[in-house]
Amino acid sequence: MMAQILDGTAIARALRTRVASEVADFVGTTGIVPGLATVLVGEDPASQVYVRNKRQSAVAAGIRDLHRHVDADVDQETIAAIITELAHNDAVSGILLQLPLPGRLDSKRLINLIPPMKDVDGLTTLSAGLLARSEPGLRPCTPSGIMSLIDATGIDLDGADAVVIGRSELVGGPMARMLLDRNTTVTTAHSHTRDLAAVTMSADVLVVAAGVPGLIGAEHVKSGAVVIDVGIHHSENGLVGDVRFDEASKYAGWITPVPGGVGPMTIATLLENTLIAARMQAARPV
Amino acid sequence: MMAQILDGTAIARALRTRVASEVADFVGTTGIVPGLATVLVGEDPASQVYVRNKRQSAVAAGIRDLHRHVDADVDQETIAAIITELAHNDAVSGILLQLPLPGRLDSKRLINLIPPMKDVDGLTTLSAGLLARSEPGLRPCTPSGIMSLIDATGIDLDGADAVVIGRSELVGGPMARMLLDRNTTVTTAHSHTRDLAAVTMSADVLVVAAGVPGLIGAEHVKSGAVVIDVGIHHSENGLVGDVRFDEASKYAGWITPVPGGVGPMTIATLLENTLIAARMQAARPV
Repeated sequence: MMAQILDGTAIARALRTRVASEVADFVGTTGIVPGLATVLVGEDPASQVYVRNKRQSAVAAGIRDLHRHVDADVDQETIAAIITELAHNDAVSGILLQLPLPGRLDSKRLINLIPPMKDVDGLTTLSAGLLARSEPGLRPCTPSGIMSLIDATGIDLDGADAVVIGRSELVGGPMARMLLDRNTTVTTAHSHTRDLAAVTMSADVLVVAAGVPGLIGAEHVKSGAVVIDVGIHHSENGLVGDVRFDEASKYAGWITPVPGGVGPMTIATLLENTLIAARMQAARPV
Repeated sequence: MMAQILDGTAIARALRTRVASEVADFVGTTGIVPGLATVLVGEDPASQVYVRNKRQSAVAAGIRDLHRHVDADVDQETIAAIITELAHNDAVSGILLQLPLPGRLDSKRLINLIPPMKDVDGLTTLSAGLLARSEPGLRPCTPSGIMSLIDATGIDLDGADAVVIGRSELVGGPMARMLLDRNTTVTTAHSHTRDLAAVTMSADVLVVAAGVPGLIGAEHVKSGAVVIDVGIHHSENGLVGDVRFDEASKYAGWITPVPGGVGPMTIATLLENTLIAARMQAARPV
């Protein structure tokens, strides 16, 4: 048996199309145009590319582009004032502070100025607390996008065994909680786990966010499992993930490629979060 | 082999003694007397007993008793104003709002008025977020007390397999995260878990917070495991837990009795949290 490919590019495209359609409905119903405020500090080339892609995708989905570009030498108080202004600005549904910031700025403190209802990256401490409590709120984009990929398989998560490798605050931590909220039995494994294969071999859903190229192979994958590879690494053979695709795809039921798996979902989920944020604010102003 | 008993009463007594000693040192060093503001609304007999025990234990540990008793017919704004006053009151290191409140009050909103540095019950959304991110903060008393019990066994948690049954915001949820922060491989099981025994039989540490009398027996316990029973239920045979003690104690290495296991740890941990809160505020005022 060869695994079915979870085509993140296609699934992300479908999600963006759905969000665009729902944004149009929302505008029609409420008269409110969702707005995304991307905040870019300085001229880091990679960050510029990421922010440009986010802005273009937002506009394509009918979301208003409310970008702010801030000089690289901005001080903490000035950037804090900008975020606070956006927090109170009714035209702004979502605020995305592009990371990393220059090292002299206190990123954590700045992120926590974003009100939870506008936290479309799901990175504030309050958003993390809402997720930990299973309360309504905005979830981080990468694990949300992964959940959309898993749902695209059509498998029944209720009572399934899920294993997440990695416990970062951006991916592994929130991912485990989101899988728990879907009634899976969830195990979090990590670099201190003694026998990784013993843990992963029972996984109906295996999310690998270890940051270790080729960590997961044939000996780790239960037959028919959904395998999600969050890793992305440059190698002599081009981009590779945390999963040895050739091996794992012989046993998995579904598997994400690298690239073209998890990556494309992130921006689509950002757009989805911006729409969710606009809806929350329409129901209950910030 | 018969399990060693994890005597919560004795371990809690030792913790209270240590906290009292450290409080005395803290007063000597800083001149600051930690203060605990318990807030009791109405005349519920059980709540009155709980609050009285907390106040007496605090005083015995050298913590100032800053109790507020509020009429049962208080309105939301008045109780909110009381909590806000305590939040800004420098004499108050910790605020404990005794639950449950009368149903017409919005408990969640009131709890979230407690600043994270004074949240000695660890119940605010921000405290949950700090825990989810492994950031410094105050942790809920019951899972913290359980961690003290586990530590009393002397076992090495790093790389061990931990299983938590239950995912509540008071116990199971934070417990799993605290065990993860100690580098265990953590599985959360619950009522939707398909084969509970298959999950628990690998657990070096098994925390049972299912709320189901006698759920766990011989078939669930790995030889030598640390078994923590959070359940407490009235039965024909007196108080019983979620674990069939007679069976489980034949296989476990350590086990908590019910009563006299987890229960006594909660107040001791509240005192510990009040001291931690006073230290945090001395280092960085609210």
